[in-house]
Amino acid sequence: MEKVAVVGAGSWGTALALVLADNGHDVRLWGRRPEQIEEINTIHTNEKYLPGVVLPAGIKGYNHLKEAVEGVRTVLLVAPTKAMRDVLRDLVPLIDEPVTVVHASKGIEPESYKRVSEIIEEEIPAEKRRSIVVLSGPSHAEEVSLRQPTTVTVSSSDIEEAEYVQDLFINQNFRVYTNADIVGVELGGALKNIIALGAGMSDGLGYGDNAKAALITRGLAEIARLGTKMGANPLTFSGLTGIGDLIVTCTSVHSRNWRAGNMLGKGEALEDVLEKMGMVVEGVRTTKAAYQLAKQEKVEMPITSVLHDVLFDGKDAKEAVDELMKRSRTHEVEDVSSLVSDRRAE
Amino acid sequence: MEKVAVVGAGSWGTALALVLADNGHDVRLWGRRPEQIEEINTIHTNEKYLPGVVLPAGIKGYNHLKEAVEGVRTVLLVAPTKAMRDVLRDLVPLIDEPVTVVHASKGIEPESYKRVSEIIEEEIPAEKRRSIVVLSGPSHAEEVSLRQPTTVTVSSSDIEEAEYVQDLFINQNFRVYTNADIVGVELGGALKNIIALGAGMSDGLGYGDNAKAALITRGLAEIARLGTKMGANPLTFSGLTGIGDLIVTCTSVHSRNWRAGNMLGKGEALEDVLEKMGMVVEGVRTTKAAYQLAKQEKVEMPITSVLHDVLFDGKDAKEAVDELMKRSRTHEVEDVSSLVSDRRAE
Repeated sequence: MEKVAVVGAGSWGTALALVLADNGHDVRLWGRRPEQIEEINTIHTNEKYLPGVVLPAGIKGYNHLKEAVEGVRTVLLVAPTKAMRDVLRDLVPLIDEPVTVVHASKGIEPESYKRVSEIIEEEIPAEKRRSIVVLSGPSHAEEVSLRQPTTVTVSSSDIEEAEYVQDLFINQNFRVYTNADIVGVELGGALKNIIALGAGMSDGLGYGDNAKAALITRGLAEIARLGTKMGANPLTFSGLTGIGDLIVTCTSVHSRNWRAGNMLGKGEALEDVLEKMGMVVEGVRTTKAAYQLAKQEKVEMPITSVLHDVLFDGKDAKEAVDELMKRSRTHEVEDVSSLVSDRRAE
Repeated sequence: MEKVAVVGAGSWGTALALVLADNGHDVRLWGRRPEQIEEINTIHTNEKYLPGVVLPAGIKGYNHLKEAVEGVRTVLLVAPTKAMRDVLRDLVPLIDEPVTVVHASKGIEPESYKRVSEIIEEEIPAEKRRSIVVLSGPSHAEEVSLRQPTTVTVSSSDIEEAEYVQDLFINQNFRVYTNADIVGVELGGALKNIIALGAGMSDGLGYGDNAKAALITRGLAEIARLGTKMGANPLTFSGLTGIGDLIVTCTSVHSRNWRAGNMLGKGEALEDVLEKMGMVVEGVRTTKAAYQLAKQEKVEMPITSVLHDVLFDGKDAKEAVDELMKRSRTHEVEDVSSLVSDRRAE
């Protein structure tokens, strides 16, 4: 039995806390709102985020971060990318002994283009952490909380620490793989939201399964191209945190990014869409970041590029898709195999 | 303008004939049933296979294969794998000048394990053909006939002939890529049906999107593993004829293989399912072939293996999925990167 602090009591943080509690660990779930924590500790639910789910007794809610992290060996961070630095600055002074820092957030920091593990590396001094581990994969929180079969990947530059985290989480319903390519695992999770926006847009325009499958496939190729340039192993994009997560996000109407794209495809303006959603649509920010990165790194990203023009330059969505279809004929081979030859040349 | 014979007037043959006619070609569509051919020539519909679609005047129906192929430069074959040899034996004596043979059939011949292009190679003497070209990709015929955006791949060992076929088909709605890896293109199209059966079974058992995404991702890895062993380029499985076709087949309720798997997941027996379907479920035969091939080639295919046991050994479907989840923990890296190192070692 291990002591684990889970920082962030939204749906994904709570679902992961439930997996840890199922495995017999002492789980300290931190959230900011006192009434939510009281609900968790008294009637063992977190109704707003995981409706209908009874939480195991092994989960204890905490309102004070200091109490939640006291004496833990592992801290699991589940905060939105844009809140991450603030959370880390609150956390650092509370750490006495070095901890394993796990994060399960998907995004790239705007402007700095930093991955979440890089933000953690900057904010937590080396002597306060054993390692940084990412947990990512195709996983709706609701299904995890219902103990439906789910697979995820954990990744770290320290493979022993990745295996330690694998052991914390793995059980019969929640299968955990390891992958040493932390760059690829993080970029796959972040960049897939761009393609989910595009898939939603294609559906919103009334196009069919053929168009969506093409978009997902070609989209995967271009995010792998950018990812490889940033140091990822191209094969990671064929795994759970790449194509797996992409499939879940692009084919589920529950996906926030798909829904935003769908409204755009139906002709709504970006600001109206964002207002209607009432929450962050990570893919919109990520499209901007990836577009700029692709320019800087001279990587061809045709889907990201037309999406960027639809989102930020008022380009017509139908015109954008037609433009993608009319590009000059291409050899699929060059496209894909350039990934491997780039890597071999390193 | 080119003269093209399309051999097979089902939904896919007719949809491809429509693309060729849209591009201004002289298209001769052959079918066995006189009343169907008369319908095509008089009221320009093929209602049983493409309901509601008006065919372009450039398509002429033929009942006699001899008339259909007279003087053509290209023959497009769209027959079920199991009917292919019979069709080819009818065709050979009718060919005078060498033709480009294109096929758009997905399957592996039972027992011989031959790909369709290998069957063609055996049946059509070398002096009667310029080349053999495969056309494959994520493409519901109904959507193609409605001119919805669609992408496919053409593949041949003769790249100039692949480009000739690319030029025949490419237009604004129907985008055609080339890929020199004919083995990978054919195996992707055939083996994906195994995973579609599995995806249907997972849905039939009431499992969610997480489980299905995992199954598709892990399934792709194992069919790529077998394909690579058979001489395919592993990267082809990340393209339109691999992951693209897999996505369309696994997420559409129109897929015959998905539907069969779904009934199996709900506890129906194989023979009842096959009787209800009333037509060939290609994935059932392909699972048997792949299972035997994997044994022979010593390739690990856990999903194919448990599906085989469900289909042919009466194994319980739920037990099968649970077994897949309980396998010992694995490094995702080894799994995927073994593909590339195998290939590099060649």
